[in-house]
Amino acid sequence: MTGPAKPRRGPGRPRHDEAEEGPGTQERIRLAAREVFAERGYDKTSVRGVAKVAGVDPALVHHYFGSKDDLFAAAIEVTMEPALVVPAIVGEGPEGIGERLARYFLGIWENPASRAPLLAVIRSALTHEAAAAVLRRLVLRRVLERVAADLDVPDPTFRAELAASHMIGIALLRYVVQVEPLASADPEDIISLVAPTLQRYLTEE
Amino acid sequence: MTGPAKPRRGPGRPRHDEAEEGPGTQERIRLAAREVFAERGYDKTSVRGVAKVAGVDPALVHHYFGSKDDLFAAAIEVTMEPALVVPAIVGEGPEGIGERLARYFLGIWENPASRAPLLAVIRSALTHEAAAAVLRRLVLRRVLERVAADLDVPDPTFRAELAASHMIGIALLRYVVQVEPLASADPEDIISLVAPTLQRYLTEE
Repeated sequence: MTGPAKPRRGPGRPRHDEAEEGPGTQERIRLAAREVFAERGYDKTSVRGVAKVAGVDPALVHHYFGSKDDLFAAAIEVTMEPALVVPAIVGEGPEGIGERLARYFLGIWENPASRAPLLAVIRSALTHEAAAAVLRRLVLRRVLERVAADLDVPDPTFRAELAASHMIGIALLRYVVQVEPLASADPEDIISLVAPTLQRYLTEE
Repeated sequence: MTGPAKPRRGPGRPRHDEAEEGPGTQERIRLAAREVFAERGYDKTSVRGVAKVAGVDPALVHHYFGSKDDLFAAAIEVTMEPALVVPAIVGEGPEGIGERLARYFLGIWENPASRAPLLAVIRSALTHEAAAAVLRRLVLRRVLERVAADLDVPDPTFRAELAASHMIGIALLRYVVQVEPLASADPEDIISLVAPTLQRYLTEE
């Protein structure tokens, strides 16, 4: 993850009670944003609503995070933190990379605590171009390009995207559409079939 | 596809001008439903709005298609007609099945006329449980179970779902999120990498 954003205080920006701006405040706003976007969706989320859940003044949310889209980007960053581990997994080397990735990815989705906000991000990206742009810019590129840097195949970013597309498609059919038998399948049965696919995309010419 | 739905006329159902109920009327309503759901989304579509586009009385839409959800099911059926060709493609036998499927699927998505309503169905399914249930019941099962009947692998429906998940994930990243280089890739480059995956899922133990 990036470090905390620098407070942006231009000439026109309001001053705040310094106690309210303690070191945990930005993180609290970020987590509140994730919670509110996940629960209410992109349309029904407002800066004011996030401020209320975080227990701060709306002006402070604007102060740290700017517009609603900037706040959404911050919420996506927190939500996608598990995906930012992927480059490290890939960096461990080509042997068994397909199985490690499939196992890690399914683990994130099997956990309801990480699943709900991820679903919210995907739903937002599918229904709002602004959200899709944030996802494209902030996360996919950051994850996929780092992964690609460690791959020894032609068109490594393209390969990484094909692998990602498969895992995203499985998540949609298993957890959203819930089509059987995929929805109730043992994760190990999914991993054993999908791992060779990811392995081939990420390691074979 | 199923044949035209039987007119449901119970004791409480209104009678209509027989001229308005000509043989093309149901099909016209179905096509109007696809158009309106695709343009306005699930929430903003009404039976009245579909009736207006079809040029018929709203009572006639109720008469043939029942509730808004039934109408949505009919719209999805029309939209998913290309998917109903898949069992025939699979029925041609195991040799080259992966490439035939990948090529057919990408062809549907490359054509903007079929892409727009498909995207609308997927978006609706991701944001409305009623829409997801319709998709699950009417289409995935009908396509996937027929495909599975022709496969000589363990857990054939599960295998067919894994193949479908990959193609759906590619469609989302390529046409909705539009992440590069996948979004601009030559379809043949996608087919050549994905075909062996589908081939393995659908034919190898």
